[in-house]
Order: sequence, then C-alpha cells, then structure tokens
Amino acid sequence: MKETTTRVEAFSDAVIAIAITLLILEIKVPHAAGEEHLWTALAGLWPSYVAFLLSFFVIMVMWVNHHELIRMIEAVDYPFFFANGLVLLTVTFVPFPTAVLAEHLNTAEAGAAMAFYCATFIPSSLAWNLLLHTIRRGNLFKPECTAEEISRIARAYSMSAPVYLVATVVAFYQPWLGLAINLALWILWIRLGYHSTTHTAEHRTRRRTAPMR
Amino acid sequence: MKETTTRVEAFSDAVIAIAITLLILEIKVPHAAGEEHLWTALAGLWPSYVAFLLSFFVIMVMWVNHHELIRMIEAVDYPFFFANGLVLLTVTFVPFPTAVLAEHLNTAEAGAAMAFYCATFIPSSLAWNLLLHTIRRGNLFKPECTAEEISRIARAYSMSAPVYLVATVVAFYQPWLGLAINLALWILWIRLGYHSTTHTAEHRTRRRTAPMR
Amino acid sequence: MKETTTRVEAFSDAVIAIAITLLILEIKVPHAAGEEHLWTALAGLWPSYVAFLLSFFVIMVMWVNHHELIRMIEAVDYPFFFANGLVLLTVTFVPFPTAVLAEHLNTAEAGAAMAFYCATFIPSSLAWNLLLHTIRRGNLFKPECTAEEISRIARAYSMSAPVYLVATVVAFYQPWLGLAINLALWILWIRLGYHSTTHTAEHRTRRRTAPMR
Amino acid sequence: MKETTTRVEAFSDAVIAIAITLLILEIKVPHAAGEEHLWTALAGLWPSYVAFLLSFFVIMVMWVNHHELIRMIEAVDYPFFFANGLVLLTVTFVPFPTAVLAEHLNTAEAGAAMAFYCATFIPSSLAWNLLLHTIRRGNLFKPECTAEEISRIARAYSMSAPVYLVATVVAFYQPWLGLAINLALWILWIRLGYHSTTHTAEHRTRRRTAPMR
Repeated sequence: MKETTTRVEAFSDAVIAIAITLLILEIKVPHAAGEEHLWTALAGLWPSYVAFLLSFFVIMVMWVNHHELIRMIEAVDYPFFFANGLVLLTVTFVPFPTAVLAEHLNTAEAGAAMAFYCATFIPSSLAWNLLLHTIRRGNLFKPECTAEEISRIARAYSMSAPVYLVATVVAFYQPWLGLAINLALWILWIRLGYHSTTHTAEHRTRRRTAPMR
Repeated sequence: MKETTTRVEAFSDAVIAIAITLLILEIKVPHAAGEEHLWTALAGLWPSYVAFLLSFFVIMVMWVNHHELIRMIEAVDYPFFFANGLVLLTVTFVPFPTAVLAEHLNTAEAGAAMAFYCATFIPSSLAWNLLLHTIRRGNLFKPECTAEEISRIARAYSMSAPVYLVATVVAFYQPWLGLAINLALWILWIRLGYHSTTHTAEHRTRRRTAPMR
Repeated sequence: MKETTTRVEAFSDAVIAIAITLLILEIKVPHAAGEEHLWTALAGLWPSYVAFLLSFFVIMVMWVNHHELIRMIEAVDYPFFFANGLVLLTVTFVPFPTAVLAEHLNTAEAGAAMAFYCATFIPSSLAWNLLLHTIRRGNLFKPECTAEEISRIARAYSMSAPVYLVATVVAFYQPWLGLAINLALWILWIRLGYHSTTHTAEHRTRRRTAPMR
Repeated sequence: MKETTTRVEAFSDAVIAIAITLLILEIKVPHAAGEEHLWTALAGLWPSYVAFLLSFFVIMVMWVNHHELIRMIEAVDYPFFFANGLVLLTVTFVPFPTAVLAEHLNTAEAGAAMAFYCATFIPSSLAWNLLLHTIRRGNLFKPECTAEEISRIARAYSMSAPVYLVATVVAFYQPWLGLAINLALWILWIRLGYHSTTHTAEHRTRRRTAPMR
C-alpha cells in the first residue's frame, strides 16, 4: 500500500505549526509588584525569551528538514505513519523542556535545566534516524534521489545523537557551552539543507538538459 | 448532495493535530523547591510522561484509522459531517482524562483515574461505530471496497466498546492491568490497519492486471 | 480582484478547528482534596461538561454552515477577507463565554453567566449577516445559486440575531430556558443546511439531465 | 532550487491561525468574589477585550498581507523559508505583548505596557522587510509583477518600522495616542492592499485583452 504524501504532510505541518506556536504560552506575563517597574519585570524574563527563540529556531529547522525529506519521497506506507508519528511526538514535546529551561536558566539549576533541554533532542534524533530507515526500507524515495545523496543525509542524521549526548554532558557543567554545541549543530543542519538542495537543483538541470527518455 | 472528502479531511486533521499537540500543556513545569534537585522533580513527573505518551499514541492510532477510513470513501454527505464531528468531539476530549490520569497516577486515586481514562474511550468507540454506520447508510464507500472488507472493519469497531468497558472495570481495581487491555486493543488496531491495507493493495493489483473495463 | 476560495477556506478551517479544540483547556483537572473521592470531584465538574458540549456543538454547526456557504461562492475578494475575519473573531471568542459559563453554572450567578453566553452570539450573528451581505455585494456567488436559495439563507441569517437577543433576556431569569432557545436555533440551522443541500442536489440533477450547453 | 508555494503557505496559515486563536486564552475568567456581580467583573475585563480585539485585528491584517505577498511570488527557495520563519516568529510572539497590555492597561503601568506592545512590532516590521528583500534577491516574484508595483510595496514596508518606533515613544507618555498611531498604520496597510489588488486586476485585464503571445 503506497499513497501520496499529501495528507501526512498536512498533518505533520499542523502538528509542527501548533508546537511552534504553543511556545509563546510559556512566557508568563509579569505582575509588576510593588516597587518594581514593568520594564524591569519584562527584562527579568530574559530566560523565557532565550528559551522561546531557541525552541522556535530548532522547530523551524526541523520543519524545513521534514519538508525537504518529504519532498524526496514519492509515497508513504503504514510503517512511515508511525515513524513519522514518533518524530512528531518529539517535536510536540519541545515546549516542555523549553518551559523548564525558561524557569531555571537564571537559577542555580541552570546546568540541570540546560542538560535536560539538550537531552530531549537525543530521542528526537533517534526518531529522525528511524524515519529515514523506514523510508529506505519501504523504498519510498523518488527514483531521482541518488544513493550518494541519501547516504549523505544518513551520515548527517547519525551524527546528531552523539552530538546531543555530548551537549547534554557539557551543559551540566557549562550550560552556555552546551547550548553553543546545540546551536552549532542546528546551523550545520541548515547548511546541510542548502547543500542538498543545490545538489538536487544541479541534478535536475542535468536531467532536463539530457535527451528525453 | 455528495461532495469530495477534501475539506472535512483537512478540518479533521487540524482538530486531531491540535488535540495531540495540546497534550504537552498538561505537563506542568516543576518548581524545584528547597532541597529538591531539578532532576528529582523532573523524574517525579513520571505519571505525566506516561499519560502524555499513552494519549499521544492513542490519538496517533485514531488519526491513522481516520485516515484509512476516509481513504475508503469517495464522498461525504451532511449526516457524515455530524457523525465525524462526534468522533472529533471524543478526540478533543482526550487531553482532559489524560490530565486527570497524570495528576492521580501516583496517588491513592490511581484506580479511579485510570478507570475514568479508560471509560472515556467508550463513547469514543460508539462515535466511531456511528460514523461507520453513517458511511454505510449514506452509501459513501468507494465501489472498490468489498463488502467483506467493510464487515471486517465493522466487526473490529463493534468489538472495541465492550473491551473498553472491561478495561474500565478492571482498571478500578488493577490500574495497570486496565491500561494493558487498552494498549493491547490499540496495538490490535494498528495490526488491523496493516492487514486492511495489504488486502487493499492486493485487490488493486488484481484490478490493474484485469482487462480494462 | 477575484481569486479562488482555497486559502481563505484553509485559514478559516484552521481557526475554527483550533477554537473548537481549545474548549477542552477550560475543563480544569480536579484536585481531590481530603475526604472527597475523585469520582465525586469529576462529577462535580458537570457545568464544565455542559459548557464544553454546548460550545463544541455550536462551533461544529458554524463550521458546517461556513463550509456550505463557501461552497456556494466561486471567488473571494478583499472585503470578503475582512468580513470573514469578523466571523472568525466571533468564533475564536467562544471559548471565553464557555469558560465563564462553566465556572458559574452551578452558582447564584448562573443567570448572568448564561445571559453572557447567549449575548456573545448576537455580534456573531451580525458578523454572519455582514459576510452574506459582502458576498452578495461582491457578486461572489456561483452562477448556479438561485436568487431564491440565497434569499432563503438571508432570511435564516437575519432571524438569528433577534432570537439570540430574546435568549439573552430570558437566560437572565431562566438560564435553562435561554439555553433551550439557543439549542432550538442551532438545530434549526442544521435542518436549514439539510434542506439547502437537498435543494442544491435536485438543482444539480436537473442541470445534469438537461441537454449540454 | 525553486518550488511552489503550497506547503510554506499551508504552514504559515496554520501558524498565523493558531496565534490568532490563542489570543482568547489570555482573557481570564473572572471569579466573582463576594459582593461583586458577574456582570461587573466581566465589564472590568475591558482591557482584555481591547487587547484581544487589537491583536486579532493586527494578526488578521498580517495574514491578509502575507497572503497577498505570497500570491505575487511563483516559487520559494531556502532563504525564503528562514525569512518567512522570522516573520512567523514575530506573529507567534504577539499573544505575549497582548497579555501584558491586557494586564496593565488600567494600571499606572499603562504607558509602559502600551510602549512594549508597540515596540514588539519594530522587529516584526524588520522581518517583513527582510522577507521582501529575500524575495527580490531570490528573484521569486511572478513575471507579471511590475517593478513599480514591487517598489510601492517596498516603500510601504520600509515606512512601518519608523512609525512603530514613533508609536512606541509616544505610547510611553500617551498610551492611547500611541495606539492610535498603530491603528492608523494598520488601516493604511489595508488600504494599501486594496490599491495593490485593484492595480493587479487592471493589469491583468490589460494583459488579457492584449494579443496572445
């Protein structure tokens, strides 16, 4: 049973869109109490802003990656639904570690909070690897995706779980350094996407200029 | 009046996607108080994680089932909207028993909370049966769906309400056993889908190889 | 500038789907305190269930009506966006009076809460009338919609604001009677849709059997 | 790599739809305490209603603008995803300043709250400008969009950040005057859209009447 990607794409988009938008609910309105001015109270929320921006960024990167991955496949099957569901599970979970981080970033527990935040991306990364594995096993890639292209993606995917693990351990002692490792990985993800799409574009151009089959 | 399934599918997807994503809002950020470490507090939230995973799983299974069912129909009519609405009502309700479960799973009220959780799937199951009945009465199935295929689904549907009822009663005395019954049913649902789609695929292959009408 | 209804339909569906799903957030998990059993506490939430069911039902009816109305138009224009936006505004507002109702239905303030609930449908009804007016002025109806069909809808629309006004006044003194008036109107709306679509179907059949143009 | 706008449009619609619907969660149900009547308590929530209506209106205007902009482009590329993501970030942020405004509009901090509210549209405006710049640099506009049309939009976009800056400073001392400046800008945006689409329509008509290529 193979079918087009339309509905699973729409469902995934909706879930990711909601997860990214729910992040804002974690920034709690300050109740300017007594002497304190509203501006001071708003400035005191900086951990919430940091956590919000961070999680918005990572979910956005995930959406773009999901989008790029789905574009490379031509059909979905039953196991795909559940592997994709697992990825979505890890995306919808993000608002929780985000809230934990926002609440503890300027406390003595900053290390633990940041480590928890980084740690939640380990299962997330495993879910992405499972999704890729499911796509390969189900033979769902479009015929124009080269084996080389797919293994480049697989290498990038398999790399991320260990990096998150390192980030988690580091974050415990050096919260900001752990965060920096995460950020570096995400920026790398963006560049990976860039590269991949350039590659695809070249590939297509080559195909188009080739004689018609 | 018959029309295509596009918009009701999109609406259902959106409702299910939101319900599945709202689940995370029920996990409340712990406020590490006094002596307690953040990690201890986070670990103490295990009932919330269990409830979250459980409900994410069941809503995911429901989405896949909804998806499979909609694929089998070729049109929707007015009664379908309301029968489908009733199914969606029971899906959007899930976050509430989930929160009740999360709050009471490690208290003396665990049995009552788990029974309440299981009980909410009884009306849900009835709504699915009504939806199937509405589809049949409205003659909405695609012509390629065999009567045998449809009655196999009907048998599976009609079986679930009694199972949930048993799970509810059992859960009162043995919360985890009640949960296990639910889980068993959901896994059965997944397998049912598998079987159904394999069947459909065979069916299609047969039709394709048959001479053109 | 006329364009197809696709994107405004998708956006409206999303807004309505979210509003209908947010309703569940208003049912607060009971914290079984002291002597009270969880079941007693859950049963004590009946005003929340009533409010939830009521609002789920009315938003569902609104979605079906929105859907039926959009099906009758062939294009959208700029004023349509804002008239439709006004309708969506009144839909997204529904969770608030619902929460007010849930909180006060079993208190001495039940009358005021129910009157407030009913009253919020007055602007809603006016927004629907404005939307219809905008569609007519913009000449957006499909050519196959008969003038008679449109004026029947217009009559039904223009009738609802006064009914909600009466329901509001009645609800103040007799909360449940006010509610009954609302419910009667909503059921009438459903029947209206039925009638309208049967009519359309007949109309179409007639057109199909007519000689090709 | 260019691709059609479909999926990014759907994702943006979902994010904007959720942001606009979450606004209602910021209106907290009053708990009629002691002597106070429910109606008095509901009337006392006027700052919440003002903030809700304001933010609903501005997000609606943003949606329409997003919609109009996307209609003018024929493809999206990788940088577009992130520039669009930045716009969505500023849209999802709106519920927070809205809640701050609702909480403080009838306190001594009204000026600070309104200034904060206005200030959040400065980065929003910059994000829109970046999006437009990305579209131009990526050469994503449809061929039928005239240079003149695009620069008219660019002028309107570049004007808004300074206006929001002025509104922010003014709001500090005269909250309602700051608000009025914002509102004036938004109404101008609506009119801009009107003008633009009329222009496009004329343009199209001209093209249609021109001899076929």
